This record gives sequence, C-alpha cells and structure tokens, in this order.
Amino acid sequence: MTAQSAARHRVVVVGGGFGGLYATRELSRSSAVEVTLVDRRNFHLFQPLLYQVATGALAPGEIAQPLRSIFRQRLNVTVLLGEAVSVDVAARRIVLSDGGPIDYDTLVVATGAQFSYFGHDDWARFAPGLKSIDDATDIRRRILIAFEAAEREADPQRRAEWMTFVVVGGGPTGVELAGALGEIANDTLRRDFRAINPGDARILLVEAIDRVLPTYPADRSASARRQLERLGVTVRTKTPVVAIDDRSVEVKVDGGKADGATERIPARTVLWAAGVRVSGFAHAVAEASGAPTDKAGRLIVGPDLALPAHPEIFVIGDAAVEPWKEGRPVPGVAQGAIQGGRYVGTTIRRRLRGEPTPPFHYRDLGDVAVIGRLAGVTNIPWLGRFGRTGGFLAWLLWLGIHISYLIGFANRIVVTVRWAWSFFTHGRSSRLITGQPLLPPIEEPEPPA
Amino acid sequence: MTAQSAARHRVVVVGGGFGGLYATRELSRSSAVEVTLVDRRNFHLFQPLLYQVATGALAPGEIAQPLRSIFRQRLNVTVLLGEAVSVDVAARRIVLSDGGPIDYDTLVVATGAQFSYFGHDDWARFAPGLKSIDDATDIRRRILIAFEAAEREADPQRRAEWMTFVVVGGGPTGVELAGALGEIANDTLRRDFRAINPGDARILLVEAIDRVLPTYPADRSASARRQLERLGVTVRTKTPVVAIDDRSVEVKVDGGKADGATERIPARTVLWAAGVRVSGFAHAVAEASGAPTDKAGRLIVGPDLALPAHPEIFVIGDAAVEPWKEGRPVPGVAQGAIQGGRYVGTTIRRRLRGEPTPPFHYRDLGDVAVIGRLAGVTNIPWLGRFGRTGGFLAWLLWLGIHISYLIGFANRIVVTVRWAWSFFTHGRSSRLITGQPLLPPIEEPEPPA
Repeated sequence: MTAQSAARHRVVVVGGGFGGLYATRELSRSSAVEVTLVDRRNFHLFQPLLYQVATGALAPGEIAQPLRSIFRQRLNVTVLLGEAVSVDVAARRIVLSDGGPIDYDTLVVATGAQFSYFGHDDWARFAPGLKSIDDATDIRRRILIAFEAAEREADPQRRAEWMTFVVVGGGPTGVELAGALGEIANDTLRRDFRAINPGDARILLVEAIDRVLPTYPADRSASARRQLERLGVTVRTKTPVVAIDDRSVEVKVDGGKADGATERIPARTVLWAAGVRVSGFAHAVAEASGAPTDKAGRLIVGPDLALPAHPEIFVIGDAAVEPWKEGRPVPGVAQGAIQGGRYVGTTIRRRLRGEPTPPFHYRDLGDVAVIGRLAGVTNIPWLGRFGRTGGFLAWLLWLGIHISYLIGFANRIVVTVRWAWSFFTHGRSSRLITGQPLLPPIEEPEPPA
Repeated sequence: MTAQSAARHRVVVVGGGFGGLYATRELSRSSAVEVTLVDRRNFHLFQPLLYQVATGALAPGEIAQPLRSIFRQRLNVTVLLGEAVSVDVAARRIVLSDGGPIDYDTLVVATGAQFSYFGHDDWARFAPGLKSIDDATDIRRRILIAFEAAEREADPQRRAEWMTFVVVGGGPTGVELAGALGEIANDTLRRDFRAINPGDARILLVEAIDRVLPTYPADRSASARRQLERLGVTVRTKTPVVAIDDRSVEVKVDGGKADGATERIPARTVLWAAGVRVSGFAHAVAEASGAPTDKAGRLIVGPDLALPAHPEIFVIGDAAVEPWKEGRPVPGVAQGAIQGGRYVGTTIRRRLRGEPTPPFHYRDLGDVAVIGRLAGVTNIPWLGRFGRTGGFLAWLLWLGIHISYLIGFANRIVVTVRWAWSFFTHGRSSRLITGQPLLPPIEEPEPPA
C-alpha cells in the first residue's frame, strides 16, 4: 500500500457511517488524496430507520447500501473490510484485528457510539440495544416470538409476561421503538391472532429523567408523551432501571430517589435505548494520543474537529465531543456526523492546498421524531414557531427528510413503495423470524404455593 | 383446541410452503372446516427466488410474507409457530417439539424437502445448501467474504482459492446459482475492487450425470450450458463429487467411472444444490403409518394424494411421490405443490359434502430457468415449439411468471422496482454481510517445500 501511493496524501477513514461516508465522499473529489475507508461491515447503514427493521416495516437490505458500490467510481477510494483495533500515533499507522497495518498521513475516526448499560453489561443479554442490522433482526425476532408465545400460553400470568414490552430510554430511539410497538400491537397485528388480542399488550417506556426527548423543548416532549399515550404506551419518567433479568425489569419508584422503593415489572421483552459509549477503536485512539475524553469515552476535539495535540487526527460524529454554542456539544444525530464529515473532508483538502481552514460551524437543521402511524414531533429552530409541530405534519416532514437522505436511489423508491403500502394496508411485511426459529419450550405450570 | 371445534372438521396442515399455503387457502373457504396451519417459520417463503437473496439481488423480506397476515381474514384458520415431530395415526394427533399435541380429523403433510448429501452430512459444513432464508444469508455472506478476502490476499495461490466457486448439482437451483455467480463476478462487482478483478473468478458447475437441467429436453439442456459458458461458468458434467473440505472439492474425472482418477479443485466457496431428502416429520409419518417411501424418504401416495392405508392423511409437494403419467412422478417444482395443495383442499371439501373425488391430475405448465442477466431457458409443452425458448425471451417469461405468483402485492411492486433498477444499473443492492462480520485471519505464507 505504501509504495503505490507515496505521491498522494493518504487519508485513512475508520467507520462507514454518516461521518465516514460524507468525509470519504468529499475527499474522493481531490486527486491529491488517496482514501482508505475501513469498516467492520461491507455496507453503509441508514441508522435512523433501523427501528423500522426491528419492527418489521422494512427489510435490512432496504436501509443499507454496499460501501463498495457507493465508491465504485471513485478510483482514489479503497474500501477495506476489517476491524481497526489500535493506532500508533508516532508511526502514523493503524492496525486491523487480522494484522494488516495501514499507514496514514491523516486519520479520520468516525466509529460512532453504542448504547451503554451503565456498568451493567450483563443486562445486554436480556435487553438488546439497537445499533446494527443484526441487533434489528434479533429485536424483531424477540417481539414477534413474544406474541407467538403468548398465543400458545394458557396460563394468564405467563401470558401477561409475554405481552409486556419495556423500552428503556426516552431518547429518539426509545420513543420511536415504543411508538412502533404501540402501532404493531394495536394496528398491524390486530386481527392476526386467535387466542390473544395483541391490543392487550402492555408497552412501557421508562426513562430516568423527568421527560422524553430531552434534547427537544419541553412542550415538544409533552406532545411526544401525549402521542405515545394515545398509542397505548405507558410513559414512566423519573423511573431509573436498577435490575434486569430474563423475566422482569426492576425500576425505582418514588421519582427515582436513591433510597426510594423499587417495583418489579414482569416482562419477557426488554429493549435498551439508553446511555452512550464509544467503540474500542476510539478508546485506543484516546489512549495512544493521550487526548482527553468525556465520561462516555468521546474524544474532545478542537474547533477544527482535530485532536489539539495531533492535528493529523480528526474525530467526527458520535465518537467526538465537538464544540458548538454556549458550551453545548453538537448533538449525536445524523446531521452532526454528516456536517462533521463534510467539514473534515474540506479541511483536509484546504490544508493540502495551503489555504486557511475556518473552524467547524454546526448548522442546526432541527430534529424530527416519528411516533407510530401518522404522528410525530419536530423541533426545527430556523423555521421559527412553524418548526415546532406535532402529529400528522411532523410525520410528513419526517417522511420527506428520511427519503431524501437515503443512500441509493433504488432504496428510495423501494422504501417509498413499502411505506405507501403500509400506510394504506396497515401492514408490516418484513415480519420474519429468522435465526433461532422456535419458541422457548412451554413450561409446566408452577405448583401452587 | 378440541372443545371449541368439535362441531367442525379439523384439518391440520403441516408446512406453510406452496403446498400447505394453497391447501389452507382452499380449505379456508369452507365453513365446515377448521384449519390449523403449523410451520417452524412464521412466514411463507417464495422459494424459487431464494437464490436471488443468496446472490444479493433481493432482500429476505421481499420474498417472504407472514403466514398470519395471509390468513388474517380467514377466521377458520389458526396459524401456529411450532415444529411437528411425531404423529399418532391411531389417535389422529400430531405432537410438536415443545409438547403441544394437536388433534386432527384430516392431516395434510406438506413439509417439503431438503438437499441430500448422499450420506456425507459432514459436507454440509463446507458446502451449504439453499433451502431457507438463513441458508440464503449465509451463502450471501460466504460469496461476498470470498471476494473481500481475495482483495486482501497477496499470495496468488491463496487468492485463486478465494476466487474459485464450485456449485454442486446441475438442477434448476444449481444452474440459477451458477448463472447469478457469473453475473456477480463479470458484471455487478466488476469495478468494485482495486487489487483483484472479480471477472477473474473461476465458477464451476459440477454435475454427476451427463447434462444440466435433466428434467428439460436435451436441446434445452444444451442451450442452458451454452448460456452458462457465455457467462464464464465452466460446466463439468459426468463429474461426481467424492470429497469436500474447507479448501477444496475432489471430483471424479474420466466421466465418473467407479475406478476413475480424481482431481482436487482448490476452492474456498462450495455451494450444494444436489440430491433430495424429506424432513424429519415426513419420516415420522412414514414410520407411524407404515406407508412405503422411495429412497429419498418421499411418501408414496395414491391417485387422490392420500396414503392408501390412511385416507385421512394427505401428502403433497416435495414430501410425496405423486403418480403422474407413464409412471413418472409429478416434478418437484412449485407448480406441483400448488396444484397438489389446491387439489387436496378441494378433495377434503368434496368428501365432507359426500361428493365423489376425481383423482389428481397434474397439469404441466412447463419450466423456466433464468441464467444470469437477460438469459434463460423455457420448456412449456402446451405452447408447442414456441414453448422451447432460450435467451432473452425466456428471461422475460420467467420475470412475468415469478412476479405474478409472488404472494403479497407490496412484494410484487418492490421486487419489480428492484429488478428494474438492477437491470438498468447492473447493481445488486442487498449485498450485506450480516452475522459473523469479519474475514478469517490472514494466514502466514507457507514455508517453501
């Protein structure tokens, strides 16, 4: 790799999410640069729609696009399937898990973030988070299996356990998951079963702080809560989780006071959408470079999104704490990563041309979250008071924005057809239980106490 | 289950493939019948397009439809997720793997078939067959990983191993898989890699007998062979496989003579599409009923598709040997199962009304196989000599037939869009490597001998 590219500036981009994708795209326009894009997966994932795969509305292939085909015509881009595990900042070289070292002149770290179990990693087994395609198909399987098991369970108490779904975390992912669950139970599956009524499902959204969607203005949070409740979702704020096992969630009541009482909620399906933690490679970068991080492990970058002590290392998206305004960081949304990626690509090109590089300026395009069918909330500051909508208008805005940002024109058409179809038929056609196909064995009734 | 349905005739259908689906559909029209459809999966799979999932052209959800939503409005149909394992023919009761017994008045066995490794079940690990969605995503992963590994492999010999693909079996599945591989290597991935040229891939189709597509007329077999060769596929007939391991396939040369020489073909990706073997439940039915089977385990049924000694047990599709003409059985294609399912549904309804039941008459609608892009062969007897086409016309026919038989109107639109898109862009957008994400570790070069 070194020999053939000595003449050109070698940029290694780690991570093919929004940040890495847009950085690579910008860099690919310069013939002075040679880019190597490293990802553990061979595709770019449109993460904002991942919950739609988890809830059976879309198929995995419809929200993912192979990285190789995205950059097929950019001959200065090499896509490499591999996992970056460590970095030698002095030698300017990263190492992959299977050994191949790759030299760089500039490194772009765009490895994103995972959900964090706040030190209880054993909960992950009972309460999967939603970050990858495999997570999404696993969660889809759990949701569908729960209804199937309830249909076959005669004991009312155990049936109720199967029919209880708890979503932990009231951020956008938690709200969208809970909304989709409400829609599945009350609409999609309404007439699919014979022994149970899916509308009897109990869906709880539990959140440790006092409101859902904490990055939105308070009235938008209240609107989201009302819309969730209209879908049959019980929203419990100030309710931190203290324990999870395979049959229940234990939460603090009394507003979450440290010495408050706890309540055990019997539930077979618990989904995790709380906390944030960076990936192993971002940790390795922090350690090798000595760069400071916040408590989630995110690297603290300067106004040009580079590490202050290592201007040749940029960090973008969820792996970074990027300065914004009034001391607040850029929010961890797709737009933050997209704008960061574009900025870093432009900045590297400017540096090579010897031009000055203005600091990163995040333009807040606003947020939009969808809540089940035909409802949602928006917070779009630059539209003034028209940007704070709810209900159907929010849903329409969400639709337009997500379709326009989908990578791959075929995906755009297919997703539009699917959505239009679901809209008119109330259906979700990607409800496949793949992987382990079967139900857990039906248990013998417990002997009376 | 017994109490609520004592008044109605209870039919249990095991298997939600083409046979079970069409039988259930026919039966659901009669209010005198109560149907329980049991399947290990919660969806009906459009099996003829499974190879398109394995080769990245379609997403799993696009060729599958939840059984519950298909029968949502048929209130006399109960769908049960479960695996039928045994049957008590005297008590007229089947048992599921998790214990639930289900009583029947009439049983319809529609459990299909698997590929058979001819007694070498250890080969399955190295050479997966293509029968389920999970098989398809596994095969897709293997094909894509092979190109990724070749891209990163510097040693020319090991690179060649990664770039060699062997398909075992020259029936429709083998021909369609080999054709799709030819298209992937020469067209889809053509410009995706930097170190390798995917067009250098070696694709072999090996078949034990003297021609591919043995159920077609000889001139159609020859046409299919020519079209495969045009796509860069090496077709080797009279070449039985004698051994498979993780790095090679060993075949007999000299026309497959018993004492002939063998040749070892180094190849990392071997796909299996040969032989036929029934499922465990069909075996259990044969054992419990004492019904005769052929050597693949298929149950031999009478002219009404029931077991001669047990007229209340019907067997349809690939699990049965159904009489046809001149001693030949109904071919193991979707049409055979669809027509058998419809016939059995009608026959049960006629019996309940006390009407005479004519014997099953298979109407041969003909066969069509597609070979890569824009090519294929057809054999449609009732169209006379116009039914024996090849090339583009065959491909068009195939397209129309498969779209019209897809279950679920949304799937029809989505698949049409995908295909139209692939046609114009030469792309396959569902090229996701899911499951185990990473390449096998790069090996150290072997020391010179």
